[in-house]
Amino acid sequence: MKFQEIGTTKVKRVQLVDRLGSEANLIGTIHITTSHFIFKAEDTPKEIWISNALIGSIERSSISAAGSRLIIKCKNFQTITLLIPKEKECLDLYETLLRVSKLYNINEAFAFFRKENPDKQVSVKEASNNWFRLNWDEEFKRQEVGDTWKKTDFNAAYAYCDTYPEELWIPANASTQVLIGSCRFRSRARLPVLTYYYKANGAAICRCSQPLAGFSARCVEDENLMELIMGANQSASTLYLIDTRPKVNAMVNKVQGKGFEDVRNYQNMQSHFFDIENIHVMRSSLNKLLDACQKSTSVTEYLKAVESSGWLRHLKILIECGKFISDSILRCISCVVHCSDGWDRTSQTVAIAQLLLDPYYRTIYGFQVLLDKDWLGFGFKFDDRCSHLSANEELLKEASPIFTQFIDVVYQLMRQKPTAFEFNERFLLEINEHAYSCMYGTFLGNCDKDRKDLRVATRTHSLWAHIDSNLEHYKNPFYKSTSYYLNDIDLGPSAFVVWTNLYNQFDTGIQPREYINDVAVNTKEHLNVLETKLKQVNEGKLLPTNFSVKWQSLLNAEECYSRNCGLEYTTRFEKRLYCYNCGKVFCKRCIKVNEHGSRLCAQCLKASS
Amino acid sequence: MKFQEIGTTKVKRVQLVDRLGSEANLIGTIHITTSHFIFKAEDTPKEIWISNALIGSIERSSISAAGSRLIIKCKNFQTITLLIPKEKECLDLYETLLRVSKLYNINEAFAFFRKENPDKQVSVKEASNNWFRLNWDEEFKRQEVGDTWKKTDFNAAYAYCDTYPEELWIPANASTQVLIGSCRFRSRARLPVLTYYYKANGAAICRCSQPLAGFSARCVEDENLMELIMGANQSASTLYLIDTRPKVNAMVNKVQGKGFEDVRNYQNMQSHFFDIENIHVMRSSLNKLLDACQKSTSVTEYLKAVESSGWLRHLKILIECGKFISDSILRCISCVVHCSDGWDRTSQTVAIAQLLLDPYYRTIYGFQVLLDKDWLGFGFKFDDRCSHLSANEELLKEASPIFTQFIDVVYQLMRQKPTAFEFNERFLLEINEHAYSCMYGTFLGNCDKDRKDLRVATRTHSLWAHIDSNLEHYKNPFYKSTSYYLNDIDLGPSAFVVWTNLYNQFDTGIQPREYINDVAVNTKEHLNVLETKLKQVNEGKLLPTNFSVKWQSLLNAEECYSRNCGLEYTTRFEKRLYCYNCGKVFCKRCIKVNEHGSRLCAQCLKASS
Repeated sequence: MKFQEIGTTKVKRVQLVDRLGSEANLIGTIHITTSHFIFKAEDTPKEIWISNALIGSIERSSISAAGSRLIIKCKNFQTITLLIPKEKECLDLYETLLRVSKLYNINEAFAFFRKENPDKQVSVKEASNNWFRLNWDEEFKRQEVGDTWKKTDFNAAYAYCDTYPEELWIPANASTQVLIGSCRFRSRARLPVLTYYYKANGAAICRCSQPLAGFSARCVEDENLMELIMGANQSASTLYLIDTRPKVNAMVNKVQGKGFEDVRNYQNMQSHFFDIENIHVMRSSLNKLLDACQKSTSVTEYLKAVESSGWLRHLKILIECGKFISDSILRCISCVVHCSDGWDRTSQTVAIAQLLLDPYYRTIYGFQVLLDKDWLGFGFKFDDRCSHLSANEELLKEASPIFTQFIDVVYQLMRQKPTAFEFNERFLLEINEHAYSCMYGTFLGNCDKDRKDLRVATRTHSLWAHIDSNLEHYKNPFYKSTSYYLNDIDLGPSAFVVWTNLYNQFDTGIQPREYINDVAVNTKEHLNVLETKLKQVNEGKLLPTNFSVKWQSLLNAEECYSRNCGLEYTTRFEKRLYCYNCGKVFCKRCIKVNEHGSRLCAQCLKASS
Repeated sequence: MKFQEIGTTKVKRVQLVDRLGSEANLIGTIHITTSHFIFKAEDTPKEIWISNALIGSIERSSISAAGSRLIIKCKNFQTITLLIPKEKECLDLYETLLRVSKLYNINEAFAFFRKENPDKQVSVKEASNNWFRLNWDEEFKRQEVGDTWKKTDFNAAYAYCDTYPEELWIPANASTQVLIGSCRFRSRARLPVLTYYYKANGAAICRCSQPLAGFSARCVEDENLMELIMGANQSASTLYLIDTRPKVNAMVNKVQGKGFEDVRNYQNMQSHFFDIENIHVMRSSLNKLLDACQKSTSVTEYLKAVESSGWLRHLKILIECGKFISDSILRCISCVVHCSDGWDRTSQTVAIAQLLLDPYYRTIYGFQVLLDKDWLGFGFKFDDRCSHLSANEELLKEASPIFTQFIDVVYQLMRQKPTAFEFNERFLLEINEHAYSCMYGTFLGNCDKDRKDLRVATRTHSLWAHIDSNLEHYKNPFYKSTSYYLNDIDLGPSAFVVWTNLYNQFDTGIQPREYINDVAVNTKEHLNVLETKLKQVNEGKLLPTNFSVKWQSLLNAEECYSRNCGLEYTTRFEKRLYCYNCGKVFCKRCIKVNEHGSRLCAQCLKASS
């Protein structure tokens, strides 16, 4: 969208209504740009920036003496209520917002306009190496995939399956004939391929879509491929065929000529069903949960609404299924996992299983690899599920919070194992937000092919690069890097909680906004500085000087001490930084690092030099 | 109880059944002593010690091939299930447990046997000064009570009110005649007296019991006393009469000649009712909550059961009432608070109000003073509510978790304000447990007079002394000592959670057992050591030596490294201690502090000297 297409771009004297009524309404000015909705308060330095892609719905409500109300609901669960004095202005703003928030073509996403100079000199392939986290060869090398598996270029140029990656790993003995046959027998040609190899015992997790079995169809090549997968794990004589759908749903698919494997045709294999509901049930469940979080007025109503939303129950079943897969792998039994198309429930459950099994995926880098592999690589439809193309009303019924649900599952695991993950809650919140924001190319497109066609690697910024540049913000100070399987996950009913820091994250007035993590990170940094200093003194490299720091003072600070910089510390992406000399808190812009690695404010830095 | 009265004192080859089935049953030996039930595992160093007073109920269940089951439910929410091979042994054990767990006379509580040499030389008064936290004179001096209030010895030797303290603070102009008159008009003679004076504006919180008003009775002296209380706050011309009961309950009391103040007789005063339910409703609510926590099998069932228990709703109403009182005080309006007898709901709500108002009560010492004052001082019936005298079946209907509920409220506040309290969760768990354990004299007796008669100060140990000797265990590393009013408490429906670390604290297999607090405390200690060391180097007091410590290594430890000491780190009262040289973890017995204040293990200590 060109800038001139926007109607009203500025509305003055607008009131921002506090939902909870715990703070007074702020008065400010609205600016609409091609990329953002901006509210700038008049008397305070407060600013709200919302990427236009995050705007989910806009409602005009009844006119009162104070003006007209406009309610903006965002995909990151923020709700903005505005009170606009003149009705005409409200209507104009409404129409402008409708225009800027609707995307007709993914090529018009903000991510493509943010990068001023696309890397034209660089080939797409070259750019991709830096832009993506995942390199298929390297990842399977890291997994130490045994020689019962091989790489195939059978799907080069997406010849057989356009929602799969070009490079696939399959049993070493599988012929092209077998692969082609299996493709024809699987929904959207998504044949069973390797995604995780457990080097300790040679068991593997494979993924695919449902077979086109109907009531009696069978496919010798598909049966043969499954046998080869079973055989690739030499220490077991069985294979689990895991269908993540409730059995009744799978039965219904038979009518359409799809369905599930008839184990009478798949020798020595066992079939397991899990009651994970489809995208429509999950969408409606989250909507109910959001109502519970944002509209309940009593504890009773809240608990009832949380219960009837079923959201926590869905999280539990997902973890149960992931745990079943990882437990099977530990017991040396390979698993082939599918749902209907093999991109929603399959991506969720195989990713959960891998998080439990492999500590690598619990690191910041490894988690990005996991998303690049099992979500982006195997074609989770981010465009459709996150409704990037909001102008297309037909596509709205494809929208579903499947990815958010997975992130919520990771949060639940993290809550139970506070030292098992290298990243913190803020990392998950950031990833979830940018799955919807269209500010980075990372989560654009419905599959690998889409992103290649869009040339995201040269035309957009990568979210991973953004995270790299702020890595310290996303680290869990309590992380223990020991490698172990997360075997004692609590599946008891009291183990699941509503993630209020996600669903109620914008209720700033009342939620506890203090991240204990930040305090711990600062303490840890301070400790490193002291240790380095002591070491230097001991080695005679540094003359002892009067370097006195009070730890306690680090905790007594609230907002940037140089107040004129206009930054607030309630924004969750902003970390508090402490001057190690005076102990006051500053924002990133107002603090510097000296030659000893200590953070100092401008004044103390001047005094010390 | 004498030792010889115990029947079976030892049963071998007993299986301890894991409730959740997540761990294998342990085999061990049961020992019963006059004071404790002990389970000692055979192959592991695991031991379970339970004070006999904590045993709430014992059930024998059906006999199976594996033996007879015995289920012991404790007042600290621990449930022990034993499988005993021989039925005869099971029956004997059952009867022994019944005998040792039932107390007929509070003089037989274990606290009186634990102290081998009662301080016979010391007078009770002298002993009390060290034993109790509260000294009424000092506390009211700390509050800077204005000269519109005075101390009276009117109740010396508990002459008028046997459930009140001997020293009382009343309006300076109140005559003895007025006090006597008011006593006669109040349930159990609990007349309105001062408990908290807000020095910033002179407003005060007073407490009392319900008036014996019936349908029309009035008392000039009582009305006069209320006027004097209103007048003692010179900057306001009104007074709030706060009845914490639902209005309908207060009405019912009128039939029995009790009830509430008729504001037509109390000039310029306003009456406010709160819907806090009585002890029977709270008892049943907690029982339902415990069923939810311990018996639910699905998330749906759990959430429904939590909701229908009403526990979180009760917590919310308590905080609402406490907040109303403290907000009134801030607006310079004094409050007189009562319920029926003025010891249950009144103790809860005035204590909550004071926690919100005064940062002193949020320190470890101050919280103990608050308990000594508003719970112990004003006669909260610990014997009856915690059912110390469990042999008396008549008294069982007096039992109610009013104190536990208050501790839960403090936990909810602490969750919202993680830096506002000097103490941590473990401190609250410890206090709650010992309110029931009868191991310390602190929570014995129904009132101040009872404890004087029992001479607890000379004959028993004080819980406060025990806490003092382990102070570091109970400190919140994230505490900010700035003084402020907790004004922005979230009363929204999602703000209240089930305190699983209390109600599910013994589900060891699955709950996250890692206290982030411990890691932070160790880091902080380590930081202090480094700072001291650096200072000494800088001042030339210490020669630089190769003192290298890796912070990261502090986090990679699980159990006492010198495994032969038999201590486990899953017990919540045991803190992990780290050797600052090798970074390994040790228990308290196996670690020493060197001359520089560093904790070192025996081996490293030897190497360094």
